[in-house]
Amino acid sequence: MKTNTKQKILDAGVRLMHEKGFNDTGLQEILKEASVPKGSFYFYFKNKQDFGIQVIDCFFQHFKSVLNRFTEDASMPHVQRLQTFFSGFLDFFVNGDFKGGCPIGNFTLEMADVNEDFREHLNLILEQSIDLIANQIKYAQEKKEIQNVDDPKTLAEFIFFSWEGMIMQMKVSKDRKHLEQFNCFVFNQLIRNNKM
Amino acid sequence: MKTNTKQKILDAGVRLMHEKGFNDTGLQEILKEASVPKGSFYFYFKNKQDFGIQVIDCFFQHFKSVLNRFTEDASMPHVQRLQTFFSGFLDFFVNGDFKGGCPIGNFTLEMADVNEDFREHLNLILEQSIDLIANQIKYAQEKKEIQNVDDPKTLAEFIFFSWEGMIMQMKVSKDRKHLEQFNCFVFNQLIRNNKM
Repeated sequence: MKTNTKQKILDAGVRLMHEKGFNDTGLQEILKEASVPKGSFYFYFKNKQDFGIQVIDCFFQHFKSVLNRFTEDASMPHVQRLQTFFSGFLDFFVNGDFKGGCPIGNFTLEMADVNEDFREHLNLILEQSIDLIANQIKYAQEKKEIQNVDDPKTLAEFIFFSWEGMIMQMKVSKDRKHLEQFNCFVFNQLIRNNKM
Repeated sequence: MKTNTKQKILDAGVRLMHEKGFNDTGLQEILKEASVPKGSFYFYFKNKQDFGIQVIDCFFQHFKSVLNRFTEDASMPHVQRLQTFFSGFLDFFVNGDFKGGCPIGNFTLEMADVNEDFREHLNLILEQSIDLIANQIKYAQEKKEIQNVDDPKTLAEFIFFSWEGMIMQMKVSKDRKHLEQFNCFVFNQLIRNNKM
């Protein structure tokens, strides 16, 4: 029951903070959205910052589970699994009318400069996200699927943050073509498939 | 005198909104920072939104003037001028302790989803920024400096928003290596110089 209440508050935070950011989401609003009594918040969370950091972890868990779903499909080469992952997220953005964008990217631009605890935690989460992408590139290298990659980690960083940039562009243009172009540049030029 | 007061208010808005974003910057704070009387604001601006849009224009004018300063240097090939422009901005970020990031990118993530007037104006400004980069790539093509670019506009879009992504990464990592890596990927792989 207790776990349920905590999860309800976190779920409400995830929805509201994805839509409005950290600062613009009030605690009252979160508790109302979660339909839990007012006193519950401080039973589960030290303060709003502690809550925000746990909300970031929820976003990261979601990112990891989506990435794993796509990259565990052994019927495809690793490069194609990665490409399918990015295309899957593109469909998700199109279905959501291009709103919201990447919640971890949003948190970064909003909070990294003004709160050192957030910055450190976001840095950690982003490093782990990049490592997950880099692992796929390494597997593709080991299987000799790709020919032109020197350093999987550096390439994964460039891919991940270019993607964050494309999500930003998509938020403003409301056009899927930018993420399609991202796929072209990344999977035709930066990563060249040996079978192409 | 009137123009001076308007410019003072805009300059204060530019400083504060770059640091704290649009929503977190109050009008009182802007007027205090600008040291102008309270009543002045509505003489020059319809409302906070109208002011925010004019602040975005100030950021864009600054971006254009920096880009022009680098790209008008006829002693260098066009590709090198573009590369020098990105390196110049990197130095600016390093000197500023990686804080602030790109104000137009910040405005986009904060406002594009929640205010249609902001979204339309940001879309226009970003299109114009991309066209300025695309023009440099076109000039480089015309002068046969580069060999592997099909569509300057599409490439300029990818470069511009990858750069936005790198700025995001830099805000969180406080490390210049990401923008250096950006230069490598863009100017060694995506754009290949004929003279290399």
